[in-house]
Amino acid sequence: MKFNIALLAGDGIGPEVINEAVKVSDAIAKKFNHEINWTPALTGACAIDAVGVPYPDETHDICMKADAVLFGAIGHPKYDNDPSAKVRPEQGLLLMRKKLGLFANVRPTFTFPSLIDNSPLKRERIEGTDLVFLRELTGGIYFGEKGRKDNGDTAFDNCVYTRAEVQRLAKKGFELAMTRSKKLCCVDKANVLETSRLWRETVQAMEKDYPEVEVSYEFVDAVAMRLVQWPNSYDVLITENLFGDILTDEASVISGSMGLMPSASVGEHTSLYEPIHGSYPQATGLNIANPLATILSAAMMFEDAFGLKAEAEAIRSVVNKSLEEGIVTEDLAPKGSKAYKTSEVGDWLVANL
Amino acid sequence: MKFNIALLAGDGIGPEVINEAVKVSDAIAKKFNHEINWTPALTGACAIDAVGVPYPDETHDICMKADAVLFGAIGHPKYDNDPSAKVRPEQGLLLMRKKLGLFANVRPTFTFPSLIDNSPLKRERIEGTDLVFLRELTGGIYFGEKGRKDNGDTAFDNCVYTRAEVQRLAKKGFELAMTRSKKLCCVDKANVLETSRLWRETVQAMEKDYPEVEVSYEFVDAVAMRLVQWPNSYDVLITENLFGDILTDEASVISGSMGLMPSASVGEHTSLYEPIHGSYPQATGLNIANPLATILSAAMMFEDAFGLKAEAEAIRSVVNKSLEEGIVTEDLAPKGSKAYKTSEVGDWLVANL
Ligand SMILES: CC(C)[C@H](C(=O)O)[C@@H](O)C(=O)O
Ligand SMILES: CC(C)[C@H](C(=O)O)[C@@H](O)C(=O)O
Repeated sequence: MKFNIALLAGDGIGPEVINEAVKVSDAIAKKFNHEINWTPALTGACAIDAVGVPYPDETHDICMKADAVLFGAIGHPKYDNDPSAKVRPEQGLLLMRKKLGLFANVRPTFTFPSLIDNSPLKRERIEGTDLVFLRELTGGIYFGEKGRKDNGDTAFDNCVYTRAEVQRLAKKGFELAMTRSKKLCCVDKANVLETSRLWRETVQAMEKDYPEVEVSYEFVDAVAMRLVQWPNSYDVLITENLFGDILTDEASVISGSMGLMPSASVGEHTSLYEPIHGSYPQATGLNIANPLATILSAAMMFEDAFGLKAEAEAIRSVVNKSLEEGIVTEDLAPKGSKAYKTSEVGDWLVANL
Repeated sequence: MKFNIALLAGDGIGPEVINEAVKVSDAIAKKFNHEINWTPALTGACAIDAVGVPYPDETHDICMKADAVLFGAIGHPKYDNDPSAKVRPEQGLLLMRKKLGLFANVRPTFTFPSLIDNSPLKRERIEGTDLVFLRELTGGIYFGEKGRKDNGDTAFDNCVYTRAEVQRLAKKGFELAMTRSKKLCCVDKANVLETSRLWRETVQAMEKDYPEVEVSYEFVDAVAMRLVQWPNSYDVLITENLFGDILTDEASVISGSMGLMPSASVGEHTSLYEPIHGSYPQATGLNIANPLATILSAAMMFEDAFGLKAEAEAIRSVVNKSLEEGIVTEDLAPKGSKAYKTSEVGDWLVANL
């Protein structure tokens, strides 16, 4: 098969981790007789520096024409702590999600047996954890009307959801649950918010179409607790944009493998794959960042965007092997043992595929 | 001294835990020569059953006239999972907060040395944790305009904050930080929300009035992570209503002592003290609920509402003693050892004051 992939390396360590994911993807393609055509494009702070906007039209065109998008990370400290900055890298991210119609963010959280002791949680609390959040990504308070009144003394952000937006996200949730343990948890705040009541009633109405799926409804504050107490009690969770932002990040640290967690954003026009970690500016150029989350995101791309399960499994299994043999960057290297460079990890994976 | 305290036992286990807090408070009052006049009033599901509304005017009058309010818990399963219910116990809670002007919810999270191994987190992650959230409680998306459009197919919730609302909450945060380690963290989502940008710029402008306080600004998703990773890196945190709802509940489970965490809500007219746990309907009437969170809430009341530090310390120290001696309800009793009844714990505390 032949694929066109848009390559958005972004800022900070983005280019370094993307580089390793490209190496591994190319090696997989060669092994399985595929051809990948990579098209690099600018986004984030580097796009602001180059052309003044964080998500240029040219980048959008490249993404729209691509079979999938592989994304690094964006963000630069010079834009932090300045609430009044007119152009910010994050705006590029939001614009990209909206214009590409990436309405569902797929965020798995799972444990690696060899890394389980890195978790802040006790082993018995996290063993067997394997959950997936589906976060709505193009609606809610992120994209509602926002602004100021009263000479700037009053600020507002409107949260809006339509039934159709909830349905298309929930449909993905039910379908995903059917391929897993058939358990779905709808996370909302229906005791306070009208949008949450719309979520709950919409999902309730869909239950009859998936009679095998056991659906539960939990308040966001209760989920924030239970994620720390019994993460392995969850399987598929669906939720709105802002709750998803908070809970997926919370979930990412429980496994102790945050630097390894991949993600996908799927939608109307294409799909995008990215590590969940940020641009880690302090490490830029040092060749020390952990490339595994990006490499595992590429595996998700092979499986979900191209339907190539064997290719995805080959990547995952060589990643597991690298972890077991301790071919890891400094974030995972036990005290006193050798830490490998970003590019060394990529090289090792390619050599051992 | 002489105090009038409004006593809102509420639903479920509320009456049982309140009963023990009253016993302990009366014993303390006697010991220190104070006189407490308790005035019971209805709120929650029991108020709906009795008079059709969850926060009756009569209850409000009693609270307004009281020097402080001691509150149990509200909620009843018959109102859950029914997003269309017209009257719900939670509405009583929100109305009470709004009408009493309780704009700041004070939520400490700390560890008890004898309970530290109950935590889902590893000991080295939580030792020394002693943080306080100040959650804004009468504004934001909880109280903004909400409703439906398009024949019910579109729902909206508006989040609104004024500069004055942020200032009065932040002022409490700075003042609290001055009495502690002089570290204040403002939690927001200023990279996305206009209300968060108002929060951040307002707090930034107040920094000059508290030159000794070191202020940091963190995004809500980052705090959701760090609370699990390094909870003891925080001291005082201030945040808006919805973020506070999620993060304070997340924080409550890290210490392993959720059943013991007290809280206060302070504001314009009076102040209210309540355990952070819910109404625990399954345990109603069984005399097994842990009364310590309510008793420690009474301790906060003595200290913060009445300025009686010695009285508060006397309660805390006898509670510590009960924990060390294993005079605990079933939630804290180690396997195989005796679990005390709710009322037995209260009796023991009174006898050992
Ligand atoms: C950078 C920010 C706008 C973004 C979000 O809030 O969606 C990030 O936190 C994420 O989760 O991808
Ligand atoms: C019951 C609910 C309305 C309430 C809230 O969200 O404020 C509760 O979760 C709390 O934190 O006191």
